[in-house]
Amino acid sequence: MAQTFVMRGVGGKVQKTAAEMPELKPNEVLVKITHSGLCGTDLFYIDPGCVLGHEGVGIVEKVGDAVLIHKIGDRVGGGYLRSSCGHCKYCLTGRDTLCYNRDIYGFSGYGNGTFSTYYIATEGYVYKIPESMSSEVAAPLQCAGATVYSALKTYYKPGMKVGLIGIGGLGHLAIQFAAKLGAPVTVFSTSPSKEKEARDFGASEFIVLGHEDKLETPVDLLLITAHKAPNWNTFLSEKVVARGAPIVILGAIGQTLEVPFLPYFFNCYNLVTNLVASRSTHAEMLGFAAQHGIKPLIEEFSMDEEGVAEAIAKLQSGKIRYRAVLKA
Amino acid sequence: MAQTFVMRGVGGKVQKTAAEMPELKPNEVLVKITHSGLCGTDLFYIDPGCVLGHEGVGIVEKVGDAVLIHKIGDRVGGGYLRSSCGHCKYCLTGRDTLCYNRDIYGFSGYGNGTFSTYYIATEGYVYKIPESMSSEVAAPLQCAGATVYSALKTYYKPGMKVGLIGIGGLGHLAIQFAAKLGAPVTVFSTSPSKEKEARDFGASEFIVLGHEDKLETPVDLLLITAHKAPNWNTFLSEKVVARGAPIVILGAIGQTLEVPFLPYFFNCYNLVTNLVASRSTHAEMLGFAAQHGIKPLIEEFSMDEEGVAEAIAKLQSGKIRYRAVLKA
Repeated sequence: MAQTFVMRGVGGKVQKTAAEMPELKPNEVLVKITHSGLCGTDLFYIDPGCVLGHEGVGIVEKVGDAVLIHKIGDRVGGGYLRSSCGHCKYCLTGRDTLCYNRDIYGFSGYGNGTFSTYYIATEGYVYKIPESMSSEVAAPLQCAGATVYSALKTYYKPGMKVGLIGIGGLGHLAIQFAAKLGAPVTVFSTSPSKEKEARDFGASEFIVLGHEDKLETPVDLLLITAHKAPNWNTFLSEKVVARGAPIVILGAIGQTLEVPFLPYFFNCYNLVTNLVASRSTHAEMLGFAAQHGIKPLIEEFSMDEEGVAEAIAKLQSGKIRYRAVLKA
Repeated sequence: MAQTFVMRGVGGKVQKTAAEMPELKPNEVLVKITHSGLCGTDLFYIDPGCVLGHEGVGIVEKVGDAVLIHKIGDRVGGGYLRSSCGHCKYCLTGRDTLCYNRDIYGFSGYGNGTFSTYYIATEGYVYKIPESMSSEVAAPLQCAGATVYSALKTYYKPGMKVGLIGIGGLGHLAIQFAAKLGAPVTVFSTSPSKEKEARDFGASEFIVLGHEDKLETPVDLLLITAHKAPNWNTFLSEKVVARGAPIVILGAIGQTLEVPFLPYFFNCYNLVTNLVASRSTHAEMLGFAAQHGIKPLIEEFSMDEEGVAEAIAKLQSGKIRYRAVLKA
């Protein structure tokens, strides 16, 4: 058998280190990783020394004695929500990402990640990839796709116009999902150069920031996938975002959320959050993406120190169009 | 006929001034005011010179030619939402307070308020008071009661434990409504002296701030009726407020809403708002309050310059228990 490895933060860089062949608990599944997306979130866990990666796709190579729903040879994906108790009010009502005993990427299990030969999954926390979907396409859906689909599933209602700030890894998928749900989609961007691609993904309106007066009607739901807060004086206006609209914050916009109170209050905006996706929503998202041919636009890198370093540098410079995928 | 008057801000004080007998438009209703609550919101409109008051109750004395649903002699209440277009997506879906053509207290119509002999209402924007409810009890329900009932109607679901910060005009009604909806209610307060009254209103748990470790379980919905922001480091903890909980901000907590991002995001809290109540919810609230005997605890003052000055001074010193009502 080939040497097994994991890639983790060591001294601020990502290093490939030899790893023991994992032992499986009865409810665990050994996934031989073929692809993993690189997400902005991964960058926070380099310094803590975490094994990186939470958008993994691979083939089930071995299952624990108690595992029923995964078979050797299954092609599966996952990596952000690693387990939950299964018995609390959250788990029992399809909100398993809120479980008080959840295990999510970056908070524990630092020895396990998808930038590795093997990812150890708990039964039920990886999801079968639809046959028509390639593995490199499936990888970014495991976090970016799940996150935006879950936000739309929770807050989008037919008839809404969807607004989006941040056309990156999450945003370019959000446009596709929202458009396929039937919504008119307005993209707000600082870069006029992104208009063509935004429209190709399914946007019906493209507003360069500073030109909100060109907006035909305000958006009824605003998704923020950018990594800094927007100018709230622009977006907490009823001319830009309709009164009562949910504003879903999906990006890590800084240490503090700071908004002007009066327009927030008198326009009755709701500042809501969403953390990746519950298991039920995650599985549903994969089916929806396959049905509608929703695909991330990816750039491939090799899953080794050079490939990771290159992908991270490109991500940090804001030049990835739109998601880096590491190939084992 | 006796002299008609209005009470408005003049040079920072509330003065009683003679007023013309109002002329009615065809869709308007003349309400002879008998009682009006005094709300913290009124204080913001003294300096601008507004005729004050938006928690009025009185008797219909005259109706415009086109009015169908109000009759002379009806006892009605209202005053915050004064009109809306009736035809937009908000008005047609029970969210009339969000109508872009709404007229709400303090934003226009400065010559009309409920600290006056007559309040001029638009048809359908005052609500019949249930027979079993006295007018002084009905007055504070027109804004304080409507606001907290609407928040509960929107965000409370059976099984939730409701938390409350701010046991004042709104808060003491919120406890009653939530308890009568079947919820366990936890009051958070700086004042141990308020425990008995909180429990009399229906609270089942009383936590003095700084002793959150005594909380049996976290609350699933948090209503903030205080006039300053709570210590977010306390309340954005999953030990105090359950993950995924809506946090409904009902008080004017300052110029800026500023919360620490990471606990907000990783606990998936939703910072939501609510503006008084739609017409449908307002009418429903009055029925629910009558059915369950929900009553504000009031202090009466006379509707003249001395009475208003006394009520305002007591409100500003935080000593009103729990709502001032001016009696004409």
